[in-house]
Amino acid sequence: MVRHIVVLQWSDSATPAQKEEAAAAFRALPGSVPQIRALRSGPDLGLVPGNHDFAAVLDFDTVEDWRAYQESPPHKELIARHIKPILAGRTAIQFQVGQ
Amino acid sequence: MVRHIVVLQWSDSATPAQKEEAAAAFRALPGSVPQIRALRSGPDLGLVPGNHDFAAVLDFDTVEDWRAYQESPPHKELIARHIKPILAGRTAIQFQVGQ
Repeated sequence: MVRHIVVLQWSDSATPAQKEEAAAAFRALPGSVPQIRALRSGPDLGLVPGNHDFAAVLDFDTVEDWRAYQESPPHKELIARHIKPILAGRTAIQFQVGQ
Repeated sequence: MVRHIVVLQWSDSATPAQKEEAAAAFRALPGSVPQIRALRSGPDLGLVPGNHDFAAVLDFDTVEDWRAYQESPPHKELIARHIKPILAGRTAIQFQVGQ
């Protein structure tokens, strides 16, 4: 299984409504991208200073399924409409789970 | 459930052996920190440029369990012996799973 993690830093100008719309758009992804096996996402809990603001963890059966997600219209729309306008930083990684 | 994600960038001078020792130290954590409900970790798959190098996803029942992990000797040793010597960048977040 391939785990895709993206950790995002919102810009200072991002409004609470924009952040919640981005979060909702992430949560809706499995409904429109069948390759997603699981998705866990949410805002930082504020337990320590210096953390990023939002994380999404998506699991796929194969790298090919992850690529299909990357190329999918819902993913592209998520980035263009909900992430880019309020993005200040992004860290991502994909790794094999259950080697 | 509280999900703790740490995504790490290794320094250019980090050797393959140092990276594997860090990965092994992460995998060993559940054996010495009973508060850890689940741990998934691994090196980046190299699918896209610009990713970080290593990620660990740890799940805890409560914030208090996460704090116990943070303060635990095995976690502090992991950082001092295996991460700090080869660390170039770190992104972290904790979020609520299953809200």
